[in-house]
Amino acid sequence: VNPTTTIADERPALSPDAFEAELHAIGAARYHDKHPFNVRMHAGELTQVEFRLWARNRFYYQRNIPVKDAIILTKLPEAVDRQAWLLRITDHAGADDGQGGLEYWLRLGEAVGYTREEMRDDTGVLPGVRVAVDDYVQFCKERTWLEAVASSLTELFAPDLLARRVVDVERHYPWLPPEGLDYFRNRLVQQPKDLDHVVPLVRREARTRAQQEACLAALDFKCGVLWRLLDAVEVAARASAAERRGADWSDS
Amino acid sequence: VNPTTTIADERPALSPDAFEAELHAIGAARYHDKHPFNVRMHAGELTQVEFRLWARNRFYYQRNIPVKDAIILTKLPEAVDRQAWLLRITDHAGADDGQGGLEYWLRLGEAVGYTREEMRDDTGVLPGVRVAVDDYVQFCKERTWLEAVASSLTELFAPDLLARRVVDVERHYPWLPPEGLDYFRNRLVQQPKDLDHVVPLVRREARTRAQQEACLAALDFKCGVLWRLLDAVEVAARASAAERRGADWSDS
Repeated sequence: VNPTTTIADERPALSPDAFEAELHAIGAARYHDKHPFNVRMHAGELTQVEFRLWARNRFYYQRNIPVKDAIILTKLPEAVDRQAWLLRITDHAGADDGQGGLEYWLRLGEAVGYTREEMRDDTGVLPGVRVAVDDYVQFCKERTWLEAVASSLTELFAPDLLARRVVDVERHYPWLPPEGLDYFRNRLVQQPKDLDHVVPLVRREARTRAQQEACLAALDFKCGVLWRLLDAVEVAARASAAERRGADWSDS
Repeated sequence: VNPTTTIADERPALSPDAFEAELHAIGAARYHDKHPFNVRMHAGELTQVEFRLWARNRFYYQRNIPVKDAIILTKLPEAVDRQAWLLRITDHAGADDGQGGLEYWLRLGEAVGYTREEMRDDTGVLPGVRVAVDDYVQFCKERTWLEAVASSLTELFAPDLLARRVVDVERHYPWLPPEGLDYFRNRLVQQPKDLDHVVPLVRREARTRAQQEACLAALDFKCGVLWRLLDAVEVAARASAAERRGADWSDS
């Protein structure tokens, strides 16, 4: 029933600590904090147009997080894990008015000059972003619950990035209203609870080497989703910058 | 931005009451309580094999309800509606251990003789069931939030069916352990809250005739999803019965 158990991998299982170290090694090599677009964001090198492009396209990813979490929730065999996973959806939906990750990201959209209707309109999403995110949702639908859960482990590497983002964006982009960063401030508070649930769950349930390798591959795949998202934004940003330079020349 | 508003329909909007009457007319004509398989279930004519086939295949629909609800949640413009919609996901996930629609449906699966692993294994789902349910999730993803919300209005017709189901199944299928019906008993308690939210929302937001017609079409589509699901189960049930008759003859 569990496809990962059918993969032939006769090697002995890694110890949970060695397995977790392998997960961290994937993040060190492949997490999107090292993507050129992200490096430029943190160095203060993005134009306002580029920052806007990122905020809107990344929202397509944000909107699909509760969807892939609902898929994972319905796959989890244990009620206690389903209930822990429900808190992730609650974090994005908001338990009270005017809260929740979706609301905070819409505020970022407004802070960079979009209306909420524009942010919610999928037709403006870059094709590369759409495919990367849709692939992620499909991965969670098709793979075992353990692989789907393991794909969320990019959040192991998020706290450092989020903390730096709040500081770097505040410093380099003074035109951005402070509420534009509520999402990142809020995630710094929410994410430790998610990690406290998911890390022991994956360490415990990935019992065989084959399961561990499937989890490592799932995390590698997810790093690729986030990377491809920034690839698409970077290409569109450069094309848009070239167009503006062309417009400047024709004006001169 | 809202595709429904671009449909040319110059007729005046229906009054909210006339609009709601049209919604009810669709249910009266097209809801799956009139499907031959459902009629046979309530008349006590299903074999245990047929009942099992239905319980397992319908679970694929059940598992996708929180997924389509997460999609709708992320589309809803108002935080207060997102939070109301979150309660639907909570109802299926379960706020406490051993509760929730998914848990109750797994108990039905166990009551008809499946393991939980078998119930969660999508590979056994009938192709027609899979396509009907996947179409529904896709509909909620692609259409406006108002159409996606309106597609849930089959629940207008559910309370009558659920109440009859508890009574009829208890009477006709004495081999089914009582906990097999927990899902239906529980939905009778949960669903009024959903209706109290969704009916005023759709009445209020479907302002133009075009929007009202789009909602009516969405409800018609959704009735078709539930109908197609039972079509697929009915065809497989008849094929399985014919196979058993063949086996009986060859034994004689």
